[in-house]
Amino acid sequence: MVAKRPPMGWNSWDCFGAAVNEAQVKENAEYIAKHMKDCGWEYVVVDIEWYQPSADSHEYEPFSELVMDEYGRLYPAPNRFPSSADYKGFKPLADYIHGLGLKFGIHIMRGMPRMAAHKDLPIKDSEFRAKKIANPNSICFWNPDMYGLKCTQEEEGARAYYNSIFKLYAEWGVDFVKVDDIAREYPHCRKEIELIHEACVNSGRDIVLSLSPGPAPLKEAEHLKKNANMWRITDDFWDKWELLLEMFKRAEEWCTHSGPGHWPDADMLPVGALRQDYNGNDWTRFTEDEQITMMSLWCMMRAPLIAGGHMPKNDEFTLNLLTNKDILDIEVNTHCGHQLYRTEEEIAWIAPCKDGKACYVALFNISDKKRKMVFETADYELDGYKKATERWSHTKASIRNGEVKVTVNPHGAVVLRFE
Amino acid sequence: MVAKRPPMGWNSWDCFGAAVNEAQVKENAEYIAKHMKDCGWEYVVVDIEWYQPSADSHEYEPFSELVMDEYGRLYPAPNRFPSSADYKGFKPLADYIHGLGLKFGIHIMRGMPRMAAHKDLPIKDSEFRAKKIANPNSICFWNPDMYGLKCTQEEEGARAYYNSIFKLYAEWGVDFVKVDDIAREYPHCRKEIELIHEACVNSGRDIVLSLSPGPAPLKEAEHLKKNANMWRITDDFWDKWELLLEMFKRAEEWCTHSGPGHWPDADMLPVGALRQDYNGNDWTRFTEDEQITMMSLWCMMRAPLIAGGHMPKNDEFTLNLLTNKDILDIEVNTHCGHQLYRTEEEIAWIAPCKDGKACYVALFNISDKKRKMVFETADYELDGYKKATERWSHTKASIRNGEVKVTVNPHGAVVLRFE
Amino acid sequence: MVAKRPPMGWNSWDCFGAAVNEAQVKENAEYIAKHMKDCGWEYVVVDIEWYQPSADSHEYEPFSELVMDEYGRLYPAPNRFPSSADYKGFKPLADYIHGLGLKFGIHIMRGMPRMAAHKDLPIKDSEFRAKKIANPNSICFWNPDMYGLKCTQEEEGARAYYNSIFKLYAEWGVDFVKVDDIAREYPHCRKEIELIHEACVNSGRDIVLSLSPGPAPLKEAEHLKKNANMWRITDDFWDKWELLLEMFKRAEEWCTHSGPGHWPDADMLPVGALRQDYNGNDWTRFTEDEQITMMSLWCMMRAPLIAGGHMPKNDEFTLNLLTNKDILDIEVNTHCGHQLYRTEEEIAWIAPCKDGKACYVALFNISDKKRKMVFETADYELDGYKKATERWSHTKASIRNGEVKVTVNPHGAVVLRFE
Amino acid sequence: MVAKRPPMGWNSWDCFGAAVNEAQVKENAEYIAKHMKDCGWEYVVVDIEWYQPSADSHEYEPFSELVMDEYGRLYPAPNRFPSSADYKGFKPLADYIHGLGLKFGIHIMRGMPRMAAHKDLPIKDSEFRAKKIANPNSICFWNPDMYGLKCTQEEEGARAYYNSIFKLYAEWGVDFVKVDDIAREYPHCRKEIELIHEACVNSGRDIVLSLSPGPAPLKEAEHLKKNANMWRITDDFWDKWELLLEMFKRAEEWCTHSGPGHWPDADMLPVGALRQDYNGNDWTRFTEDEQITMMSLWCMMRAPLIAGGHMPKNDEFTLNLLTNKDILDIEVNTHCGHQLYRTEEEIAWIAPCKDGKACYVALFNISDKKRKMVFETADYELDGYKKATERWSHTKASIRNGEVKVTVNPHGAVVLRFE
Repeated sequence: MVAKRPPMGWNSWDCFGAAVNEAQVKENAEYIAKHMKDCGWEYVVVDIEWYQPSADSHEYEPFSELVMDEYGRLYPAPNRFPSSADYKGFKPLADYIHGLGLKFGIHIMRGMPRMAAHKDLPIKDSEFRAKKIANPNSICFWNPDMYGLKCTQEEEGARAYYNSIFKLYAEWGVDFVKVDDIAREYPHCRKEIELIHEACVNSGRDIVLSLSPGPAPLKEAEHLKKNANMWRITDDFWDKWELLLEMFKRAEEWCTHSGPGHWPDADMLPVGALRQDYNGNDWTRFTEDEQITMMSLWCMMRAPLIAGGHMPKNDEFTLNLLTNKDILDIEVNTHCGHQLYRTEEEIAWIAPCKDGKACYVALFNISDKKRKMVFETADYELDGYKKATERWSHTKASIRNGEVKVTVNPHGAVVLRFE
Repeated sequence: MVAKRPPMGWNSWDCFGAAVNEAQVKENAEYIAKHMKDCGWEYVVVDIEWYQPSADSHEYEPFSELVMDEYGRLYPAPNRFPSSADYKGFKPLADYIHGLGLKFGIHIMRGMPRMAAHKDLPIKDSEFRAKKIANPNSICFWNPDMYGLKCTQEEEGARAYYNSIFKLYAEWGVDFVKVDDIAREYPHCRKEIELIHEACVNSGRDIVLSLSPGPAPLKEAEHLKKNANMWRITDDFWDKWELLLEMFKRAEEWCTHSGPGHWPDADMLPVGALRQDYNGNDWTRFTEDEQITMMSLWCMMRAPLIAGGHMPKNDEFTLNLLTNKDILDIEVNTHCGHQLYRTEEEIAWIAPCKDGKACYVALFNISDKKRKMVFETADYELDGYKKATERWSHTKASIRNGEVKVTVNPHGAVVLRFE
Repeated sequence: MVAKRPPMGWNSWDCFGAAVNEAQVKENAEYIAKHMKDCGWEYVVVDIEWYQPSADSHEYEPFSELVMDEYGRLYPAPNRFPSSADYKGFKPLADYIHGLGLKFGIHIMRGMPRMAAHKDLPIKDSEFRAKKIANPNSICFWNPDMYGLKCTQEEEGARAYYNSIFKLYAEWGVDFVKVDDIAREYPHCRKEIELIHEACVNSGRDIVLSLSPGPAPLKEAEHLKKNANMWRITDDFWDKWELLLEMFKRAEEWCTHSGPGHWPDADMLPVGALRQDYNGNDWTRFTEDEQITMMSLWCMMRAPLIAGGHMPKNDEFTLNLLTNKDILDIEVNTHCGHQLYRTEEEIAWIAPCKDGKACYVALFNISDKKRKMVFETADYELDGYKKATERWSHTKASIRNGEVKVTVNPHGAVVLRFE
Repeated sequence: MVAKRPPMGWNSWDCFGAAVNEAQVKENAEYIAKHMKDCGWEYVVVDIEWYQPSADSHEYEPFSELVMDEYGRLYPAPNRFPSSADYKGFKPLADYIHGLGLKFGIHIMRGMPRMAAHKDLPIKDSEFRAKKIANPNSICFWNPDMYGLKCTQEEEGARAYYNSIFKLYAEWGVDFVKVDDIAREYPHCRKEIELIHEACVNSGRDIVLSLSPGPAPLKEAEHLKKNANMWRITDDFWDKWELLLEMFKRAEEWCTHSGPGHWPDADMLPVGALRQDYNGNDWTRFTEDEQITMMSLWCMMRAPLIAGGHMPKNDEFTLNLLTNKDILDIEVNTHCGHQLYRTEEEIAWIAPCKDGKACYVALFNISDKKRKMVFETADYELDGYKKATERWSHTKASIRNGEVKVTVNPHGAVVLRFE
């Protein structure tokens, strides 16, 4: 089974946008191999526009010449990924990443390059040509590169194209594909998702299939669980408290859909060094407490953990945040986690361990003031437990008269493990 | 804490409609005390229109003379509840029920009798009169008895009236109040719910507060958890497969909101002898398999169990259905239950035991044909368990290569306990 | 044919609210007879709550004792309408008004008094009783007096009640009935409108049937034209520029539905002395230009003209406004009027005379500044006309090179007659 | 003023689809010049895809090579329009049409060819290039040729492109441009409409600007009147009674917006020989009565008249239908026409003559049975007229006791002229 546990890794978007290059990817991979791998971090993912030679920011350039082969399959721009020269694709980079004991991933847009359609290129290992299977009416509204495919009217042709690209990715040694412009495009992308999933399975390689952007529709949960390993549950997530607060709502709705092979995705963790804003600042605007809240929530809901910052610039706090094994344990060893209650000021989540020996409770202070929070174990049928520890501070929490009392910073969290 | 576990009991509506009388209530209570009490069944609830002397069916009669005191508080109609004569109210009947070791409940409509408003009666223990606090624009669209109260404009007066009736119910010995025309009336009934909850708490007696009818809005879950012990999550439920199938959707959405003191309510169980239909048939139209599915789902989601049939007429199957301790155990000893997956033909639910020693899995065949169903334990991280039993048949289920294989009847269910 | 031309008259609401009395009605009637009758003003209408003895403002009092006969038919409160004592009803007042050469009208709420239903009174000249035909679920959301009738389930009974009241009104000599809580209540009041129309026709007297409040739905235009003589096209209209500006939109939509017997109604004209506001001011807040705009628009769309102020207090401007025969001519002699164009600053309407000898054009300055406006006759195919006069100033307007140039005050209007 | 009266002419779409050629256009023009010109028919319009060499049906071919110049301006495909060879464009054909005493029109899609954008062509007489001004996200959902322009973000560049094409059309001698994919695309095409209108005016030639497809939004009536000479009020209209019946609703809503220079457009008249259907039939499926109804309605609302059939194949009925001067008079000489009433079976329209000497009334039988219809002149204030004629049969209609009685075929119409 692919993605038996929630995938953990790194993605280039939050820090490098559409402009990431090979050196930057390697630099991050090396850091992760050295400092984070033993905690479970493994996927190194190159995000959007790696086939665009002139990409230099978070913006997209329309009608540009993309690097592609004679079958309309995109290749890395050699000026940005030198090892890919001579149509070697991502194979050399993937090999390098694998050599570090990590896994390699890429981002793609659904569909085929618009230029491939206008040039009516042949589809590899098939009798189809691009003109017949590209859908001139199916475009992405925020990226100008592709046409979607005629997945229902020209199912065989669309299947041939998707098979052709996933076969290529498998040859390159890709372990993770993030497909964009698709997860919130129900119902018209339903069949396209199915064909992509099929091509992924048929590629002959274990490839994690990740769908973006969100919000994916909650009512399609079963279709998503069947056809993808992870899918975005919100629009792009950045380092703003309002977005983090909003994530609690989505997490509440989606939590029962987490399980081996299928994980609702709360998007990348915007921690450490990110893209520069207008003031030249490139450091996450989240407070340390907010980052603790974010990590706690992602773990309690068993969301994939994909770091978004430039890892080599991590400070001590950031590295500790990402490598706290007491917290990461929740991702692996719990099941059936969900929100317990929510008030104007507080939210609580519960997550029982699969082996029944312990149960986690996270208490979030969503108010703007420091708060004393009281957790009554009997109110949530946890009065059977006699011992509790707080997992961020690694301290014992006392249970008196069935109550645990803690003080929590504004926008902060504590995570209790009852045993 | 009131309703520490999901309430279990009986309600008069499904078999007697608006016309139930004292003899019928007693007859059912006696049966329950004798045959069902030791399984947890305890509440005996008199449903709508007990204050209406001429009620004789499931229909309501507009503009009729209701039995009420000089403070606009409704009293049982003595012709139907003889023990209540001379304004003794439900006290004698409640005493009788208590004497059987059971608890007693009643149904009310929100608001005050229209006649009390038109007569401008005084409110007990206050300086308010009915005319000022009744809201002439707040009516129920399916029952003609009451006006809602001006809970925001005349908060003190509305509080006084609700306090006056809950105080009376406490004096009678009422243990359960089902308030109708309110749970789906958000947002305008928000304040009315709060005042009723407050009156219930202030009554000085432990009274389960149940809100009807559904569907209560999911987005009001936290308000409901704070202000009620149970609330309906669907419109009225009857013995039709379509309604049962629909309940799975609601159960999926609401399951994470179950917990001590607050239980999403899937409505009465229409089992055994019900009201006569046009053909003179009075027996539930559910097949035995459907009844097993219903009981399994209600338990997996920890819904309150309120039997709707005329209990003394129960046949052996019905009684066994209601008193299977292997199944009822799920209501008491699990937490964090939720749906695992759903296809066109199958649904599965999981519910871990609070003590971590076991985990329940229910497999539902929602197709119209007998099915072989396979449950892969590893797919749901249950591969740590080595033993399984089926709880309806009380048989051992074999786990081979991590799989449990079962054959399930159309619309039927099996419930596995992994240990 | 009833209402062959748009009705003109006076209504008590804008100045006296729910509290109007006989002396005030007479005072207005006398003024109208003396000063306005020869311009077409004829209906004198007593608005809401004439059956409520304690009404003393624009507010309604719930659960009060209304004056009614043993058949549940409302009668004037004798303390407010002394001539109605001893159940003579409005006959004496109507006779008085008729004696002045005017016509008499009343306001009613759809349905029957709630008290009549609760008392289950018999219906005059029928075997029905109130309890059977009153609909306990059909109430007005802003007035507490009545229950609507079961017009579909109990059609014969509902017909009997409406016949009984319109027969009474005919006996009283009523010429105009404004039925409230009905015109915007489609679709559920469709049948009620039909029964009221039928009762009106069956009364044996020519009675103008007016439906309120608005907005009546545009898509019901044909039903309204068939079943009423006038119907409100907006919510209540008062002396605020924003409401007047909004009326242009409704007038544009409804204008093609004006015609003999059926007139879209833009509500009363709030001119002169109105109800007191919080500052003690009781004079219309409209500027003189706004009043000219209002009268011009009402006439161009051929809306009924119902003055709302206390007529005896009219100043010279107000009386002239209401009695300008050059303008009132538009109401009577045009057809097929409609909006010609609208910009951010200007609106123009056209209304050809039925006899083809002239054509009216109204130019409205809806900006906040004085404007020079130019009307190109050829652009609107009026270049055949050689002469123009302005009807408010009674002056000649020059046509040069096919253009008419006028200067119009902020929120003001000019009305040109091309001949 | 352009389009001082409602444009009349012919369009190639209904009979030839995307495949029309020069010979066919000439053949129709010659017929019109000979048989219809004296009745006002003048515009000969080449519809969609004249720049596509391989177009051969009513379908569109994606990603095909379109004929265009080095500035991204489309040219007629010389294989279909031989006279346009060597980039002479439509000049020779326009000259030919003009030589017949008629006017020449073309259809365009909003935006620029996708290929022009992908090739980043320069824009004529400007410093802009295609890549900057084409909007990769603005496509037509039913035709694959074009990208819309960045009319707000790159206003100057978009203006330059539109000016460049309308200047070319003026050079060719084009008198009518039908712009497609735009009239129902409010609000995002608002600015594009304004730039196109501006380019049309700036072209230096009187060009009728027609916007398609419908339904254009009624609330944009004033914007449309300012920026176009005609605009479609429904989706494509074909020879089906349901569509014709539906047109009455739209006609009712839009009629007050007809006037010199701006005409709501009810689409082409599908009469005579049209495109072949699956059965090989190419004759209009409208009955003769339905065609009379259509012509009567189009005239009463003063809609543009654009014939859609292959004119040389007209039979006698069709030619008479299109050249009945008694009916066409309504288009030219009336104003302020509108619907009078509508029932389940009947509809009536009125249209007064601008000179006041006569008034038209059309009576439509929308039922499926022959009907006797009675028109009461007094009910519509036409009792001043003493004489009436029926304009399709050219017969006198008698007015007795103020009534005109006529018998009308199913789906048919009579048109009365009162004098």
